Amino acid sequence: MELLKKKILECGKALNSEVLLVDSFLNHQVDVELMNEIGKEFARLFKDEGITKVATIESSGIAPAAMAALHLGVPMVILKKAKSMILSDGVIQTEVFSFTKRTSYQLTLKGKFINKGDRVLLVDDFLAQGEAAFGGANIIKRAGGEVAGIGIVISKNFQPGMDRLRRAGYRVESLAQIAAMDENVVEFEGDNE
Amino acid sequence: MELLKKKILECGKALNSEVLLVDSFLNHQVDVELMNEIGKEFARLFKDEGITKVATIESSGIAPAAMAALHLGVPMVILKKAKSMILSDGVIQTEVFSFTKRTSYQLTLKGKFINKGDRVLLVDDFLAQGEAAFGGANIIKRAGGEVAGIGIVISKNFQPGMDRLRRAGYRVESLAQIAAMDENVVEFEGDNE
Repeated sequence: MELLKKKILECGKALNSEVLLVDSFLNHQVDVELMNEIGKEFARLFKDEGITKVATIESSGIAPAAMAALHLGVPMVILKKAKSMILSDGVIQTEVFSFTKRTSYQLTLKGKFINKGDRVLLVDDFLAQGEAAFGGANIIKRAGGEVAGIGIVISKNFQPGMDRLRRAGYRVESLAQIAAMDENVVEFEGDNE
Repeated sequence: MELLKKKILECGKALNSEVLLVDSFLNHQVDVELMNEIGKEFARLFKDEGITKVATIESSGIAPAAMAALHLGVPMVILKKAKSMILSDGVIQTEVFSFTKRTSYQLTLKGKFINKGDRVLLVDDFLAQGEAAFGGANIIKRAGGEVAGIGIVISKNFQPGMDRLRRAGYRVESLAQIAAMDENVVEFEGDNE
């Protein structure tokens, strides 16, 4: 998605070979017009998948996921990050390790919000190691739903998440795929083709 | 806003005189079409206030705030909840006590995302004691911005937040104002007029 790649080059900042700062338009200040275009693009890419719900992981995924859900005409479900196990009927949890924050959280869903027959599009802002996406997919399946696709705003393809998810059989679409980066340099997949 | 009140009566659940469960359409599963209408309504109510940014508090405020920002044609800024003080240049924090969770967090903003001259609409899902709204307003002002209005999806008017904010001089608009509630009963302001 050219509009997004342009925004990353203009307003993003690669701090080093691992960290891309996009807090001026994606995860602190949010360019909602861009999120709307991102939502439209996810809706276009997954329009033939019979999506019934969009799921996302709080909180940076919510804005693009809400726009995707709006354009697909389906509800959004926010998978919550809880600090501890919740012992309550109908609550599904799975532990996710965040490499960025070097800590774990319990990804949490009230199971009744995803049901048998649901075809779920999982949307998240970043894909790196794939831990959050695998956690989300795990919860969706345990609730009875099917993961019909995974939509990512920015993927760091030089990290293992994208390969892991595709090897596991998921359809993954990433709107900005970074092949490599370093201080003040971002190179997208296909730029050298 | 009649559409929202209808949804609360149909899909919300008052557990007791203090807790209203709206996780089937507002803060866990999210009815994004309704959020879009809520965003439109905030944009209509505040259209003459010269709003330059919409701010919200993560994470339940993000969906309605993003829609409001989209309809106002301005960026959204997400005020983050951090566990601890961040000692970093340009970061503004204020402690907020959550009566619901019986714990405090540090509401956090990179100051550069709100500036002198910004007229900010603060949007949140609930207003009860007013702690989060006062925290948000405090941060916006310390960053140099002006609080041009506060938009609330659901206010529990029988709790002190609404009065406190209005006495402090803020323009507060709440789309569903609850006068009283009890197990399985919700009464809106003005219903008995």
